[in-house]
Amino acid sequence: MSNRITSLFKIKYPIIQAGMIWNSPWELASAVSNAGGLGIIGAASMYPEVLRTHIRRCQQATDQPFGVNVPLLYPDIEQLMNIIIEEGVKIVFTSAGNPAKWTPILKEKGITVTHVVSSAKFAKKAVSAGVDAVVAEGFEAGGHNGREETTTLCLIPAVAKEINLPLLAAGGIATGASMMAAMVLGADGVQIGTRFAASVEGSGHDNFKSKIVEIAEGDTKLTLKKTIPVRMIKNKFFNDIDEAEKRGANAEELIKILGVARAKKGMFEGDMDEGELEIGQVSALITEIKPAAEIINDLMTEFHIAQKSVANFNLD
Amino acid sequence: MSNRITSLFKIKYPIIQAGMIWNSPWELASAVSNAGGLGIIGAASMYPEVLRTHIRRCQQATDQPFGVNVPLLYPDIEQLMNIIIEEGVKIVFTSAGNPAKWTPILKEKGITVTHVVSSAKFAKKAVSAGVDAVVAEGFEAGGHNGREETTTLCLIPAVAKEINLPLLAAGGIATGASMMAAMVLGADGVQIGTRFAASVEGSGHDNFKSKIVEIAEGDTKLTLKKTIPVRMIKNKFFNDIDEAEKRGANAEELIKILGVARAKKGMFEGDMDEGELEIGQVSALITEIKPAAEIINDLMTEFHIAQKSVANFNLD
Repeated sequence: MSNRITSLFKIKYPIIQAGMIWNSPWELASAVSNAGGLGIIGAASMYPEVLRTHIRRCQQATDQPFGVNVPLLYPDIEQLMNIIIEEGVKIVFTSAGNPAKWTPILKEKGITVTHVVSSAKFAKKAVSAGVDAVVAEGFEAGGHNGREETTTLCLIPAVAKEINLPLLAAGGIATGASMMAAMVLGADGVQIGTRFAASVEGSGHDNFKSKIVEIAEGDTKLTLKKTIPVRMIKNKFFNDIDEAEKRGANAEELIKILGVARAKKGMFEGDMDEGELEIGQVSALITEIKPAAEIINDLMTEFHIAQKSVANFNLD
Repeated sequence: MSNRITSLFKIKYPIIQAGMIWNSPWELASAVSNAGGLGIIGAASMYPEVLRTHIRRCQQATDQPFGVNVPLLYPDIEQLMNIIIEEGVKIVFTSAGNPAKWTPILKEKGITVTHVVSSAKFAKKAVSAGVDAVVAEGFEAGGHNGREETTTLCLIPAVAKEINLPLLAAGGIATGASMMAAMVLGADGVQIGTRFAASVEGSGHDNFKSKIVEIAEGDTKLTLKKTIPVRMIKNKFFNDIDEAEKRGANAEELIKILGVARAKKGMFEGDMDEGELEIGQVSALITEIKPAAEIINDLMTEFHIAQKSVANFNLD
């Protein structure tokens, strides 16, 4: 076993479960870690003291490594980071912001830091900030996304060319074959969100999990490009935003339509019409809600099948 | 050698050069075919009699199979198809339209027909129309593109799951590693446009070829979504369209800004400000204009390197 990601995180498989807003509680993170991947608690949707509880429960539920995802634009970030440090979390994934401030602070406490980026340019900035690894996330990913719209297929080789750190691919990956494809392109492993949102242990509302399984090709779209771009399911709320955009609404108007707590309303409370339902394009390939351990097992089985099929490509 | 694409087209490597508007003359098609791929003449930018000349010259320049790409929305399509049949072309790639009418007519003349699609739904329609193979083209591809914005990484497994015909992946592929990734995802081969637009034999203006080599991540964008979506380089013309869209311009206004012959002005005549410069996201990875034979050779060398690296992934 010799992989830069498995070595860095001391895990069995180079599979990281994304720390998704409203969908990544301690139950999911510990299940993934117990199955040989790296589970991540999604702090973005948690009050600081709620995060503390999730960390403690995760520590009780697994003796394997796990991490916490922190979006750097989180309003009470000092409080959140203090809890992460106090509670002895060893791995932090940061996203949505500049890693220059927090990376050295976390590193000084012995924490392994990985930053999520959408371009080679941001990957280089993350390297300069001192991170230990980088996640490169393509256009097809769910939730907040880069403005350049670079897809995973184009992004991974571009980032791999520019940096030498361990590299995780994210966006569009839900099977062992796509995990293999990402590694062929230069990634050392993968960060998977959508597939784990449709897991038994995920904390999304049952309506949301059922919706992920139901939707087909073309049912998600990257929208709100005049504010912060986000990929969501095309529901009534999406249509309201889309119509406003088509008639030329400005950022201020869009933010008014967006209102507050839309993501909670949709993904956590189960309002499939008025809620913001963040999920990746690859949801079209997902047809079943499964336990996290079974997802990890499927991924590795498919990965080994893909590996055998590659050995049989016979093109001289 | 046992691959459904190489067998179908009687070629050495499962590499198809896309028949691109203004960029795919007989010189490029014959060079690709002579190097073991399948060269395609791009008829979309040719008057019918110009196409006849290109077909004849290609026949003189190579004894290997080659094809012609025909967008089904071409205004004088009857004339174009008659020339293709009269001149004994054996392989036709159709795109941008419904394949139901022309597929049986071409098949009856003994012509192998491949149709380009952007979704599994359209792939199934192409199968019903009787095509011999399908190209599934993702969001990252240059030129005209699907409305659902499905990326190659998500599209290929979705199409491979739904159809049993030989399948080519397109969009985001310019290296042997990405060719390998596409095949891991379920494709039998690849259709490559952008990499061949920056070839010595391509008929694009030198300004355009230099621009492809120059541009970086984020320098192309899928635009004109209220008319027919197209991926182009962000130049002055793109900015004019983009500003109009942001203020809510309707399709009629956008078509007026588009005007006529923008693609010719840009790609063929070399106007880098006012022309429409259609190219894929993967242009960011291309740094050199090369002869077509060298491109094929690079692809296969990289493919074999990727194959060896996969054999060494050691994840039990």
